Amino acid sequence: MSQKIDEFELINGIREMFPKAKPPVKLGIGDDCAILHFKDKEILVSSDLLIENTHFLIPPFKPYELGKKAILANISDISAMGGIPEAFTVSLGLPPTVREKEVKELYLGIKEASSNYRCQLVGGDISRSERFTISITIVGSNEKDGSILRSTASCGDLLCVTGKPGCSAIGLEALLKGYPPPVFLKYIKHHIEPSIKIPFARGLSILKAATSMIDISDGIASDARRIAEASGVRVVIEREKLPSLNLKEDERAFLEKEEAFYILHGGEDYELLFTVRPEKLAKVKQIAEETQTEFTVIGFVDEGEGVYIKENGEIKPLSPEGFKHF
Amino acid sequence: MSQKIDEFELINGIREMFPKAKPPVKLGIGDDCAILHFKDKEILVSSDLLIENTHFLIPPFKPYELGKKAILANISDISAMGGIPEAFTVSLGLPPTVREKEVKELYLGIKEASSNYRCQLVGGDISRSERFTISITIVGSNEKDGSILRSTASCGDLLCVTGKPGCSAIGLEALLKGYPPPVFLKYIKHHIEPSIKIPFARGLSILKAATSMIDISDGIASDARRIAEASGVRVVIEREKLPSLNLKEDERAFLEKEEAFYILHGGEDYELLFTVRPEKLAKVKQIAEETQTEFTVIGFVDEGEGVYIKENGEIKPLSPEGFKHF
Repeated sequence: MSQKIDEFELINGIREMFPKAKPPVKLGIGDDCAILHFKDKEILVSSDLLIENTHFLIPPFKPYELGKKAILANISDISAMGGIPEAFTVSLGLPPTVREKEVKELYLGIKEASSNYRCQLVGGDISRSERFTISITIVGSNEKDGSILRSTASCGDLLCVTGKPGCSAIGLEALLKGYPPPVFLKYIKHHIEPSIKIPFARGLSILKAATSMIDISDGIASDARRIAEASGVRVVIEREKLPSLNLKEDERAFLEKEEAFYILHGGEDYELLFTVRPEKLAKVKQIAEETQTEFTVIGFVDEGEGVYIKENGEIKPLSPEGFKHF
Repeated sequence: MSQKIDEFELINGIREMFPKAKPPVKLGIGDDCAILHFKDKEILVSSDLLIENTHFLIPPFKPYELGKKAILANISDISAMGGIPEAFTVSLGLPPTVREKEVKELYLGIKEASSNYRCQLVGGDISRSERFTISITIVGSNEKDGSILRSTASCGDLLCVTGKPGCSAIGLEALLKGYPPPVFLKYIKHHIEPSIKIPFARGLSILKAATSMIDISDGIASDARRIAEASGVRVVIEREKLPSLNLKEDERAFLEKEEAFYILHGGEDYELLFTVRPEKLAKVKQIAEETQTEFTVIGFVDEGEGVYIKENGEIKPLSPEGFKHF
């Protein structure tokens, strides 16, 4: 974002310029995907514009890895609504220094990652650019009223998260430092090829088991704040309940920050952060078991606004620490 | 496109990497839009990545004009399938020199042009970039089997075009030369704000009156070639039937090339080039009258391949002259 422009203010100004969503648009700007509604189907749409030096670096990333990561982040946006990823377009802007082999490797990464989720390439373009630019749009589908928004959490809900957030940020740090000890390879893999929890999210959607959902792109703290703001509630994270990464001593020594920082503020995990009515928790556990997905209750929703952390019986505001993508 | 890479070969290589379309994808890479099919609805998707100095220049274009042009080119892709433009996303990459006022002007252009076609902004993003970058994705809808492809022209069809192709290229030339005589303002307007023929295209779709269709982005010659290649037919353009621009002497004197060049090879008119069974021509005339749309029969389809021009009774191959967007 341009230094001279306040991005937040600008986006709010742009939102106000455009009228409210009218059918067939059910949900416009402000969630992981937009929703268009046609009879008994919801169509989900999400776009990403990734620009070299702003959103990614080559090196240390290889085109093959970039391709995987880029399409998985988009599949995750569909997953965050409980939808089925169906198809995507990829447009590239290529600087003159890029070789054909690298472009093909990028598409190979895209192909491998997308075919795991049965999501199909349906269009795009290639043109000249000064910086490597990747534009991806993904289209998904869902049953009528099946999509899980971030604006529908309510007081009394439990806050839950899948997997172990923080791994991706540790992987990124290890990658950028160069020559990380082999023990960090699993974190690097997590950063490059996050696992998207489609079957679990589909289960939550079909059984209407979650009240709200988002994928973790900027860290639990930031993304919990998005749920809190969109739903008009306060989200409280319980420090003791956060899934530990169980970092060993040599791992801790290699890293810049303490474990809790990665867990709360690490981004790009693409795990699911969601809220559940307490009486539906048993149903969620069943979905988790059937889809072999780990999840943890890490807090609750109550009246108020913002994100708080509960530690040693005390509840304090959690300061927003923006995750830097690099 | 990178100088060192053969774009055509690369795109073909990429196509071969990916498997053929499977449901719900009905049509993948290779037309104006991709088509996803859900029960009685077709969902159309098209994306554009526009990069400063590759696809547009600022100046002479103003952000407001750029916004209009960018969204209209995308609405035209939906129109070229006979679909209804429903919603779009806009992601911007902004260089540090861009001011907030310019970004708002760009969105104002987008808003004005899109609201004329009742097409809604539903998402997007703003980030930092070295060059001004605009990524637009549009989603449209159509009835089941309602979309008009470019691959379904057949021998004996008539070739038709709406409006007066060539105006946009003349407008662009006048703009780039600077200080054009006032008589060129109408061409410049045509270049910046092409009129998209949605009601006419919808009529062709609903009444199944056209056998194939494409919008003119690179000139009649180039886009007729796309129909010929996709349909496996030869397209013959009749020189005498092309709609004249009736350029006056002073207009001719100002321009670099003769009138026929602009008509055949001028791009970005976003007029519709389509084929019709002769027995459906009366139906097309009726649709044209009801939607107040001009169209002209300019040739025919027969056996063979490529694009030919018929002049003084003689049929010769029409050499492809790529339209340079600037």
